[in-house]
Amino acid sequence: MSSTYEIKPENKVRQLREKASYEIEKVHGILDAGLIAHAAFVQDGAPVVVPMIYGRDGETVYLHGARKARVIKMLEKTERCCINVTQVDGLVLARSAFNSSMQYRSVTVFGKPVLVTDEAEKIRALKIISDHLMPGRWDELRDSHDKEIKMTGVIAVKIESASAKIAAAMPDDEPEDYDIDIWAGIIPITTQLHDLVNDTRLAKGLKPSAVVRKLQGRIV
Amino acid sequence: MSSTYEIKPENKVRQLREKASYEIEKVHGILDAGLIAHAAFVQDGAPVVVPMIYGRDGETVYLHGARKARVIKMLEKTERCCINVTQVDGLVLARSAFNSSMQYRSVTVFGKPVLVTDEAEKIRALKIISDHLMPGRWDELRDSHDKEIKMTGVIAVKIESASAKIAAAMPDDEPEDYDIDIWAGIIPITTQLHDLVNDTRLAKGLKPSAVVRKLQGRIV
Repeated sequence: MSSTYEIKPENKVRQLREKASYEIEKVHGILDAGLIAHAAFVQDGAPVVVPMIYGRDGETVYLHGARKARVIKMLEKTERCCINVTQVDGLVLARSAFNSSMQYRSVTVFGKPVLVTDEAEKIRALKIISDHLMPGRWDELRDSHDKEIKMTGVIAVKIESASAKIAAAMPDDEPEDYDIDIWAGIIPITTQLHDLVNDTRLAKGLKPSAVVRKLQGRIV
Repeated sequence: MSSTYEIKPENKVRQLREKASYEIEKVHGILDAGLIAHAAFVQDGAPVVVPMIYGRDGETVYLHGARKARVIKMLEKTERCCINVTQVDGLVLARSAFNSSMQYRSVTVFGKPVLVTDEAEKIRALKIISDHLMPGRWDELRDSHDKEIKMTGVIAVKIESASAKIAAAMPDDEPEDYDIDIWAGIIPITTQLHDLVNDTRLAKGLKPSAVVRKLQGRIV
């Protein structure tokens, strides 16, 4: 298998090309780091974008929703969706407004959404989505009831094309602007998981497992 | 003016309706808190979603890009766009996979994108976008060159309909699941601005202004 995605009209990065990457490893890495995906579809000719919980298995992105949710029903019957996962990493304070920007990691994926109907694949996909957000938690929980699995919708999107865009640099100012008497640099931004907060209905003395404790402090 | 957006087919929340809000104040609040927006449009019948820097002025969302970027050229000539801004606030670890979820604040806006061509409005919009991400910085920077303004594209989207969805609760488990011997609760997630990092090309001894120092520590 090639180590990069083919560059097609739909995934070709035209702006800030020096930040673009078509490497499969980079695309997977950003997908795996993110918490939510933004999935876009066309409904009656108009665009709709919805934030969704997701997970990745090889070249397949699994999107999660209620079985009867509009987003699942629309994705089920549409030919095409576009998924973006973006992590903001910093503000770039340049010496001009024009050169001020952000640091980020972003991935855009195109593919055909398919409703997962096979029950075994659906359960596998749900575990992948759960493990994406809370690794190991799935195995600690009770088995899902048939009714719960039926009420859940999973959409599989095989990656047909994709691109990543990564901005991680210091300000890039006009040569003459370096003489301006103004501070320039970066303000890093992190998205971070914090300390556990007990459910208000938690049974007295019940402690979190090692799997749960390990989730704390994760930086996206 | 009404204090809520009219509920139309496009912005009606059908799932988890108890988390939905059409209050203008809530929609504005979430828009103002976010760092990036995801804007979706239709290109040749297919959906495309792009993360964008933005700002809000009253009922108008301004989106920012390079004038020649695909997203600006497409938004310029399309009739409709959908914008979502979502902030992830926590993982909800319930006693089952089915009831596990996330805490979040999310806004979806629908409207007609219009390219801003009037130079005075464009500069005003650029200041609004800059102030959204880095309040006060615009006024410290040199004036933008005409060429820079020409190279920048700003799209105005007047909010025609919108909805917010806010999930902020503890796990909501099945009555019988509260007897399961497993920890449940929340893992809060924040997106946070950290301490300044000097540009590698910063002139010796140049200190950040009060405006810049104030950006540190902001929690989104």
